[in-house]
Amino acid sequence: MTTLLQIDFPFQGPFGDAMTAQLAELAASIAEEPGLIWKIWTENAQEQQAGGIYLFQDPASAQAYLEKHTARLNGLGVTQIRARLFDVNLPLSKDTNAPL
Amino acid sequence: MTTLLQIDFPFQGPFGDAMTAQLAELAASIAEEPGLIWKIWTENAQEQQAGGIYLFQDPASAQAYLEKHTARLNGLGVTQIRARLFDVNLPLSKDTNAPL
Repeated sequence: MTTLLQIDFPFQGPFGDAMTAQLAELAASIAEEPGLIWKIWTENAQEQQAGGIYLFQDPASAQAYLEKHTARLNGLGVTQIRARLFDVNLPLSKDTNAPL
Repeated sequence: MTTLLQIDFPFQGPFGDAMTAQLAELAASIAEEPGLIWKIWTENAQEQQAGGIYLFQDPASAQAYLEKHTARLNGLGVTQIRARLFDVNLPLSKDTNAPL
C-alpha cells in the first residue's frame, strides 16, 4: 500500500530560484531513493517554513527515508521537524482528481 | 502561482472503506470547490489522524477553502486542526517526479 509522508520544518532559506540552484543535486539523489514514487517540494518564504510531501510504495520505505532525511536535516542545522505518515484514501482522492 | 494546502487533525474515524462510504458525497462537493486542482485524502487509523493535501490554482482560493473547511470540521466536532500553506518549488518537484 502506498504511504504518504508529510514533512515540514522552520527554514531560513534559500527560497525560490536560489533554493532550486542549491538543492538540485540533493533532488537528483532523492529521486533515486528506494520506494520513492514522487516528492513535492514545499516552501513558504514569508513564514520561513519548508518541507515536502512524498509518496512511497510502502510504509517501510517511507519510514527508512524519514530516518535518513531527519539525520540529514539535523546535520544542516534544521530542527523542529514535524513528520506524519498516512495511508491514502484512494477512492476519495480519485473523486477529487488526485494524480494517483 | 499554485498553492499547496496541508491539513491534518485528530480523527476518530471512520477509516478505510467506511470513510470512503461516509464521505463520498463530501468529496464530490470538494471536487467543485473554486480553484481546486486536486485533493489527496490522508488517514492514519493507528494514530487516529486524518487530513488532506490540496493543490489550488492560487493562494486566495486556498485561503478561502481553508476557512470554509475549518468551519465544517469544527461543526463535525473536529478541533486541533493544523493547516499550512506553501508555494511549490516546481523545478525541484519535477526533478523528483512529482505529478505537477
